[in-house]
Amino acid sequence: MTESNFQAIGDKRFRNIPETEDLIKQVGERVDAEGAVHVIRNLKNVAFIIIRTFRDKFQVVLDGENLKMLDQIQEGDFVRVRGNVVESRAAYKGVEVRAEEVERLSGPKEQLPIKLGSKKLDMNLNTKLDERVLTLRHLNERAIFKLQEGVVRAFLEYLQGNGFTEIHSPKLVEAGAEGGANIFSLDYFGRKAFLGQSPQFYKQFMVPVFGRVCEVGPAFRAEKHNTSRHINEYTSLDYEMGYIDSFRDIMSMEVGFLKHMIKMLKVHYAHELELLNVSLPEIDQIPCMRFDEAKRTISQHFGREIKDEHDIEPEEERLMSQYAAEEFGSEFLFVTNYPWKKRPFYTMRSPGDEDYTESFDLLFRGIEVTTGGQRIHDYDKQVQAMRDKGLEPDDFGEYLKLHKHGTPPHGGLGIGSERLLMKILNRQNIRESTLFPRDTSRLTP
Amino acid sequence: MTESNFQAIGDKRFRNIPETEDLIKQVGERVDAEGAVHVIRNLKNVAFIIIRTFRDKFQVVLDGENLKMLDQIQEGDFVRVRGNVVESRAAYKGVEVRAEEVERLSGPKEQLPIKLGSKKLDMNLNTKLDERVLTLRHLNERAIFKLQEGVVRAFLEYLQGNGFTEIHSPKLVEAGAEGGANIFSLDYFGRKAFLGQSPQFYKQFMVPVFGRVCEVGPAFRAEKHNTSRHINEYTSLDYEMGYIDSFRDIMSMEVGFLKHMIKMLKVHYAHELELLNVSLPEIDQIPCMRFDEAKRTISQHFGREIKDEHDIEPEEERLMSQYAAEEFGSEFLFVTNYPWKKRPFYTMRSPGDEDYTESFDLLFRGIEVTTGGQRIHDYDKQVQAMRDKGLEPDDFGEYLKLHKHGTPPHGGLGIGSERLLMKILNRQNIRESTLFPRDTSRLTP
Repeated sequence: MTESNFQAIGDKRFRNIPETEDLIKQVGERVDAEGAVHVIRNLKNVAFIIIRTFRDKFQVVLDGENLKMLDQIQEGDFVRVRGNVVESRAAYKGVEVRAEEVERLSGPKEQLPIKLGSKKLDMNLNTKLDERVLTLRHLNERAIFKLQEGVVRAFLEYLQGNGFTEIHSPKLVEAGAEGGANIFSLDYFGRKAFLGQSPQFYKQFMVPVFGRVCEVGPAFRAEKHNTSRHINEYTSLDYEMGYIDSFRDIMSMEVGFLKHMIKMLKVHYAHELELLNVSLPEIDQIPCMRFDEAKRTISQHFGREIKDEHDIEPEEERLMSQYAAEEFGSEFLFVTNYPWKKRPFYTMRSPGDEDYTESFDLLFRGIEVTTGGQRIHDYDKQVQAMRDKGLEPDDFGEYLKLHKHGTPPHGGLGIGSERLLMKILNRQNIRESTLFPRDTSRLTP
Repeated sequence: MTESNFQAIGDKRFRNIPETEDLIKQVGERVDAEGAVHVIRNLKNVAFIIIRTFRDKFQVVLDGENLKMLDQIQEGDFVRVRGNVVESRAAYKGVEVRAEEVERLSGPKEQLPIKLGSKKLDMNLNTKLDERVLTLRHLNERAIFKLQEGVVRAFLEYLQGNGFTEIHSPKLVEAGAEGGANIFSLDYFGRKAFLGQSPQFYKQFMVPVFGRVCEVGPAFRAEKHNTSRHINEYTSLDYEMGYIDSFRDIMSMEVGFLKHMIKMLKVHYAHELELLNVSLPEIDQIPCMRFDEAKRTISQHFGREIKDEHDIEPEEERLMSQYAAEEFGSEFLFVTNYPWKKRPFYTMRSPGDEDYTESFDLLFRGIEVTTGGQRIHDYDKQVQAMRDKGLEPDDFGEYLKLHKHGTPPHGGLGIGSERLLMKILNRQNIRESTLFPRDTSRLTP
């Protein structure tokens, strides 16, 4: 059974598996097209098969002798279709393939339990997530994650264009960046390790190395509350920028990314936007309100008592967003200068106003999608800040090497990509925009 | 201390922080340039400062009155330099900046314990890794991770150009894809969870959804042996392709990626390649040998006894690579059709030759950098294969939904990016090409 020693493999121009847009340009030609049998409509004298392609769908027509092929295929099968592309007013996008051959490549063990061809998946969220392996094949479900690709691509493309280097930092760590109980721990060869809550320390380590760095990777939070806006593992979009003049540089870079993202989605993901009926936000400038002013304004405007002076409740975020939409015509709002009490130990305090910080959140359509700010770069100030927070600097030996060896003035942010996508889609639950969500009760599929 | 409600932040064309290549085009002009004080050479009447930029370095000259500025700065500081760009034969790349002002922005707490400006870091690997926060600032060290960026960019760019969709799958999982004891476990809200050994199941889930998918993300292996080629967390480059005709399609796609990567590194990372004196491999076609033939050939050619008929030892990998270099003039070698005994339960057996599989490894300069192959797509065959491996199909309920609901003929591979990079650099230890390595004794920094 052995073959010759001297065989070799080269690269290959893979045949483009045709999408509907390609078929439009191939009217009158013969094509080979692979895809899934999405829907079969058998009208006795003629049958239509909707083929699900990588991104879209097209129609195949069978009649006469060819109707016999229907005996060989069922919905859910994977096939190779050979035939002629013809114009057809009634068909999706005005083209269809008159099949000469529909070759079955593989298929399901038994009839699929749900109709993937229905316009909407008529089931509750839990069932949809339980059956993710199947439900992701629905055109609308998969479109969500095609858009996720676009968000991530836009992020990397914009930042690389601005001199950022992409890094890949470890997720097994000795200590969490955020501290607290919201951290997963595990046994690591006899010692305790944690799962990174964010790449915070590592991206900061890389600022004196590359000047500007970014990362796309998983972040883990052991939060015990199961809400519509929290998941326990998410895809974090992070960057960290050296040589900044103020934390406003971080915000400007984010505005640039968001504009780039919107443009990229419009150009390269128009199909998915249309399918999901997405109304993209518009951005020119993003209005800013100081934390304390935002709290006060909301309180006055909506006649609502301030309960916690140092934090913003979810309902306040919603009202601030509503206020920004009404007053500034913006679906985005930067809330800046959060109280020192509520920000992590590495946050830079505002010069001359030490109860507040050089930090911000970005609210979008009612919820926070970004947290960022300038970091402390001076060693003595960082040690003092740890003490002010009741932390022991000796517990942060590795982290403090950053400051001991020096680092330029810098800051950065983290964006929860699933949250951002959830609000782009105007959905109410982050699980809708998470490929395989992890929460307190969900570890599968 | 509050500002107006009505401030807003827009995007901003950030000033390009000049690199040496920019300065060459700016001779005669005034520049502002940020960077780190890499080396100070004080010759009394004149002083030279080497500034480390984001990717390169340039020389600043101080003389006359300006020499006083030296009192304000030390090696390791971060500065903003203002001055005129002039030609200078003696300077690096023929340009230097005659400084009018060197503004210190920040700096180390005390004198740096190592000379970052030395040509090579004169320390053993362990010390270098212990002091990673500092040693990564060395020009040669950081160049390695700039190249990592290039490898990852080339991977995503090539695959997206071939119709792959990038996905982000969960790393907290219910079961490992590779099984065995090499898996980290943790408590997940009262139940047992694992850290993904590979995105295997998830990328397979996505084949019927998008047809072709890829992912760049961390993979975790709890291997207890501390060797020069193993780490316990690595950045895995994965893809999975539907509608393949044979596992050779997977290999062709990889050859295409490798060619694209080499081209991209040459064009966009020439600076780092030169700095590290990297000799890139050349690829036209990659020779292939069947597993059994490769074993036999090596045994005969090198007069070496075959100890284990079903597996390849590291020394055999090395000899196979050596053989491929000598006989075929190739630094790469595909070894194909591994025995079923040694491949995971999802591997497709070779039709008519059931002791072997439709699988391959790619060897590069002596070690395996890729494992891949065609997967079983038929439900009954997958159930039988599990039983043949002594596994209980009921333990794989979620995974088997893929086959139950149907999936096209498909296959894929996983590339260890740090291993690939290690061999591109011709280094002997994978820790050299890992940003912050994790092994049995190393969890920090």
